[in-house]
Amino acid sequence: MLKCGTIIKGFALCDKASFDKNDLGTEKTGVFFVEKAVEAAILLRFRKNAGHGMSDTRVRDKNKERFDIMGMTIAEKILKAHLVDGEMVKGEEIGLRIDQTLTQDATGTMAYLQFEAMGVDQVKTERSVAYIDHNTLQSGFENADDHKYIGTVAKKHGIYYSKAGNGICHQVHLERFGAPGKTLIGSDSHTPTGGGIGMLAFGAGGLDVAVAMGGGAYYIPMPKMVRVTLTGKLKPWVAAKDIILDVLRQMTVKGGVGKIVEYAGPGVATLSVPERATITNMGAELGATTSIFPSDEVTRAFLKAQGREEVYVPLASDPDAVYDEEYMVDLDNLVPLAAMPHMPDNVKPVSEIGEIKVNQCCIGSCTNSSYYDMMKVAAILKGKHVHPDVSLTISPGSMQVFNMLAKNGALSDIIAAGARILECACGPCIGMGQSPESAGVSLRTFNRNFEGRSGTQDAQIYLVSPEVAAASALTGVLTDPRTLGEAPEIQMPEHFDINDSMIIPPAEDPSTVEVRRGPNIKPFPLGHELEDSYAGKIVLKTEDNITTDHILPAGSKLLPYRSNIPYYSNYCFINVDPKFPARCQEQGGGVIVGGANYGQGSSREHAALVPLYLGVRAVLTKSFARIHKANLVNSGIIPLTFADPADYDKINLGDVISLPNIREEIAAGGQVTVVCGGRTFKADCDVSDRQRGALLAGGTLNYAKKQH
Amino acid sequence: MLKCGTIIKGFALCDKASFDKNDLGTEKTGVFFVEKAVEAAILLRFRKNAGHGMSDTRVRDKNKERFDIMGMTIAEKILKAHLVDGEMVKGEEIGLRIDQTLTQDATGTMAYLQFEAMGVDQVKTERSVAYIDHNTLQSGFENADDHKYIGTVAKKHGIYYSKAGNGICHQVHLERFGAPGKTLIGSDSHTPTGGGIGMLAFGAGGLDVAVAMGGGAYYIPMPKMVRVTLTGKLKPWVAAKDIILDVLRQMTVKGGVGKIVEYAGPGVATLSVPERATITNMGAELGATTSIFPSDEVTRAFLKAQGREEVYVPLASDPDAVYDEEYMVDLDNLVPLAAMPHMPDNVKPVSEIGEIKVNQCCIGSCTNSSYYDMMKVAAILKGKHVHPDVSLTISPGSMQVFNMLAKNGALSDIIAAGARILECACGPCIGMGQSPESAGVSLRTFNRNFEGRSGTQDAQIYLVSPEVAAASALTGVLTDPRTLGEAPEIQMPEHFDINDSMIIPPAEDPSTVEVRRGPNIKPFPLGHELEDSYAGKIVLKTEDNITTDHILPAGSKLLPYRSNIPYYSNYCFINVDPKFPARCQEQGGGVIVGGANYGQGSSREHAALVPLYLGVRAVLTKSFARIHKANLVNSGIIPLTFADPADYDKINLGDVISLPNIREEIAAGGQVTVVCGGRTFKADCDVSDRQRGALLAGGTLNYAKKQH
Repeated sequence: MLKCGTIIKGFALCDKASFDKNDLGTEKTGVFFVEKAVEAAILLRFRKNAGHGMSDTRVRDKNKERFDIMGMTIAEKILKAHLVDGEMVKGEEIGLRIDQTLTQDATGTMAYLQFEAMGVDQVKTERSVAYIDHNTLQSGFENADDHKYIGTVAKKHGIYYSKAGNGICHQVHLERFGAPGKTLIGSDSHTPTGGGIGMLAFGAGGLDVAVAMGGGAYYIPMPKMVRVTLTGKLKPWVAAKDIILDVLRQMTVKGGVGKIVEYAGPGVATLSVPERATITNMGAELGATTSIFPSDEVTRAFLKAQGREEVYVPLASDPDAVYDEEYMVDLDNLVPLAAMPHMPDNVKPVSEIGEIKVNQCCIGSCTNSSYYDMMKVAAILKGKHVHPDVSLTISPGSMQVFNMLAKNGALSDIIAAGARILECACGPCIGMGQSPESAGVSLRTFNRNFEGRSGTQDAQIYLVSPEVAAASALTGVLTDPRTLGEAPEIQMPEHFDINDSMIIPPAEDPSTVEVRRGPNIKPFPLGHELEDSYAGKIVLKTEDNITTDHILPAGSKLLPYRSNIPYYSNYCFINVDPKFPARCQEQGGGVIVGGANYGQGSSREHAALVPLYLGVRAVLTKSFARIHKANLVNSGIIPLTFADPADYDKINLGDVISLPNIREEIAAGGQVTVVCGGRTFKADCDVSDRQRGALLAGGTLNYAKKQH
Repeated sequence: MLKCGTIIKGFALCDKASFDKNDLGTEKTGVFFVEKAVEAAILLRFRKNAGHGMSDTRVRDKNKERFDIMGMTIAEKILKAHLVDGEMVKGEEIGLRIDQTLTQDATGTMAYLQFEAMGVDQVKTERSVAYIDHNTLQSGFENADDHKYIGTVAKKHGIYYSKAGNGICHQVHLERFGAPGKTLIGSDSHTPTGGGIGMLAFGAGGLDVAVAMGGGAYYIPMPKMVRVTLTGKLKPWVAAKDIILDVLRQMTVKGGVGKIVEYAGPGVATLSVPERATITNMGAELGATTSIFPSDEVTRAFLKAQGREEVYVPLASDPDAVYDEEYMVDLDNLVPLAAMPHMPDNVKPVSEIGEIKVNQCCIGSCTNSSYYDMMKVAAILKGKHVHPDVSLTISPGSMQVFNMLAKNGALSDIIAAGARILECACGPCIGMGQSPESAGVSLRTFNRNFEGRSGTQDAQIYLVSPEVAAASALTGVLTDPRTLGEAPEIQMPEHFDINDSMIIPPAEDPSTVEVRRGPNIKPFPLGHELEDSYAGKIVLKTEDNITTDHILPAGSKLLPYRSNIPYYSNYCFINVDPKFPARCQEQGGGVIVGGANYGQGSSREHAALVPLYLGVRAVLTKSFARIHKANLVNSGIIPLTFADPADYDKINLGDVISLPNIREEIAAGGQVTVVCGGRTFKADCDVSDRQRGALLAGGTLNYAKKQH
């Protein structure tokens, strides 16, 4: 029996009736209200999970009548409201209903090909939007063809289409579609930007987005909860960017993995929605599942100024919500910061780095391209001139931002100062131009500064606030803007300029729309229902540690062919066995035999999709890398591991391999019988029940199709 | 003896004293005032040159005392004022003093490397400007390094540097530097844009520009004179673009070769400077040497509005100026035109082409990006929306234009209509992005619509006026703007917004400037003075019809290495004999033996520069293509042809070849003695005296250096 105030891993467990907050010391960061009947169970679980986080949510879930009186985080509230599968036990898989989706064009083509393959006529989300913001340079027909495809497929299936030039997906979504309390997944890692408006927004794979558009659940491991408490108020010249840079300094780029970061404390009310969105956006660099702010009067004012006050709902964590980790940022004492080369958490005060010479300043990206940011920049630049040795680029985040700047004279102030105005798009942030000179120093308001990402291998990229970038563009050296005198004060507008003419609504009569597929866009391969038995040849036998780069090389030569699986398939295993694609074509596919750690490296879906296209039915290895195995299941290829790794040595390229009872065995969840070269041995297929369903259906798309 | 009114090839020859213009019929297009003493000679020459144009200038020149009383064209006046070498005899080489130069960044790096090789400290022109407008995407460090190099080399040597974002070279030069009566050469084929302001402006090679910056003459064959007489006044919705399209229709894309096109007639006064510049700009598509307008009150007003009235001088052809060809454009009856795929002279009225569906409209380029053009576009778009299926891009021509649009609200009208605003640069016109979708129809206000030039091989590119492009962007189909109702009336501003903050002046103390060469910028190879005798091995023996593509492949893979001759040299003859570069490196170069028509194809200077780098001293062939031979001379490689082509068969790869008396023989202008394989034979070196000087000096740069 526990008494109020008993502390386990920093949390107080107590009976609600007897709770007195004065009992809690300063180190106590959360309170659990439990009834005596479950106290022992809770304690037991805490002990069981020592070092693995706390499973308090499972307790709540299993005691539903008690859930409402137990404090929840903002994220938990939204998760609970959208839970369609699983239990909210940290680390365990949960399935969520998704209200909204977004795609960008670099990932969108494949997502919509996958959606089409599901055979769903109209999206089942409340709102799905296809944005064009990445491949806006269009050096070749491929990108323009992708845009045309996305535009027509969107029109046909109930999806809104934001044309190239309308802006960056996250900025536009915040302005025109985001809503507190809703779930959003987007095929872009910075989708958590929506957390700035109290939306639970996740970056996801294209297939996830396709499934969600088809009405399927989005699965994630139930995340841990992190609270970042903001106190005080930002001083002049200190920005929201400095807040998230400070959080990165504290948590590191791995600190957010498997966690949702919530912002709380009195500092929240001092931040505008765009400032909050800067912070949630760059939560992606923490590795966080997502980040979220409360929805409050600031949120309401923003939505009202966007003419969308009706979607406002207030959202806050319960006072007794429980967090797994806590961080603090004291806004009063924050100073202008920079993430130094080559990692977003390599953070130092600008004043400590010193006045290094600067060659380029780039302001924009989904992190810092709001009206609020651009107005600050315009005020800093007004009447001054960019240093002769600096190239300053400005990419407004959206047509709304751009046009408001054009109307109120701020854009003229920016142009007159000698800035280069780039299109409203991701631009240099995703390597579309503006690679710095050799060994050049570039200050960017973006979110990533990995080595070489700018396109110049030896460039030195610093991530900074718009204030630091604009100030430094004027002086030619890294400059603490506090040296510039009085800081501009920007008011959020009472009314944003609303012009949705570049957002094309879906067709009223979808049957009139012809989906346009340029020659680079090929149909997407789809698995088929698992057969009772299978026989085929071993088409490849690899060593250990095959990476997804071995399976399918990337690089600028091949990336334009992401929409063209048949063409891309010619490069499958090209550096391992150049005859592999031809062999598969001749033999109608077969089975790949691999060693240990097969499929390590990047998460690219194509490393499964292309083998699927080539007819690969199963991959039998000593062991798999986690994500690649999931991708195989998603595409309907059976991932098998040798029950006895010694069997690896007894089978060879060209051998006929058969799985005489495969469907029944997969369905049953037991071992799989393999016959090869006259020998019979066992293999394991270690997947979840959901994945088992996907394998039987011939992949996640087919599985989702069957379920909805 | 001829009487007034005697007509030879459409010209009237008469004694000035007895001239009465009423004697001339409508077909008489020019008048020669001559004195009796030379009449016979003129007639004789006319007869002698029948079919080859008239040599009237030689007559004038040889009778200098008579020159002033004989009518001159505008171009002849400027040429005469700048003549430093040769005689103004049509088709014969003349050398001109060059007042101004410009470069862009795609050609500039090599031009400045060549200039540096001349060893001249400060440019000797009145004004030289280095513009950055082509490679503004910067997908890789190479372009940014080029910009840095150009910026520093400009600063050191007295050259103004127009930063990326300041605009397109021709637009900015017109605004801020162009002056009537001056000569300008630029390493860009559309340099004749300056003719809109009464400047004699030529597109030229980088070496030509380098030599001119060093004070050397610019050599051209004395051009023929063409007059295009404009009558009437453009009707609403009909544009200057339609005038030049009509001239292209009349003259064809080959019609201007070896000619200067002058505009005359009452229609001239109705055209603003930007309209005139649209016309002279696209004279490049006629193949013309250049095009020019008179300098008049319209010119003065433009210069005054630019704060540069002091450079104004009036310029007009003499009433009795003589033209070799005459064309007419009746502005009253002109209609909106389009150059259909895939040639600028494939011109038809828009109304006849019909309402074809349009995927893309691109407004901008050095042809149509002026304030005047953009204001028309803004007025057409104001309050309307771009058709959902159309991507409309707008690239203002300069920071001046852009900022004026931002200030007066026109830019907001453009943005609000749903246009994509691209940087002030050449952009899609030189293939920097915006390739249309497959088989897409793109209306462009640009100057070239060659097949595949847009980056999409099967795209259908139409060249049109800004009016047609803007109107069609709204309707989604090719639209005759006359259907839109009342046309916008744009007034030229009394004062342009003057802001030269992106034009960096040269250093006051050049010694303080360090020229920055990124790793992709390598020193430029320079020939050395011709030795008395030479001996080396035959490092390559080729068949007939070797192209410059054989000598040095181009393509996107190699183009970034134009500034890196050592790297580029690894690809020299790669498709003919992959061992060639290594062999040259081993043997310290040698002699190339070629067949007939050696060096045909493109004019690329690199096909001579790279062999020079590899140590090639002479090229001995059956015959040369004209331009490549000139490039060999420019780089100091001796072009020799077999006196007896049968000698070709008697010498082989690896043979030692010697030129025992080469310097003396080249200087003397006779045949060259060749010893090879124990045999002695003769070769010819058929070059001009100036080229002979260049060969003795070790190339044109060394030659120019010696002369200045």
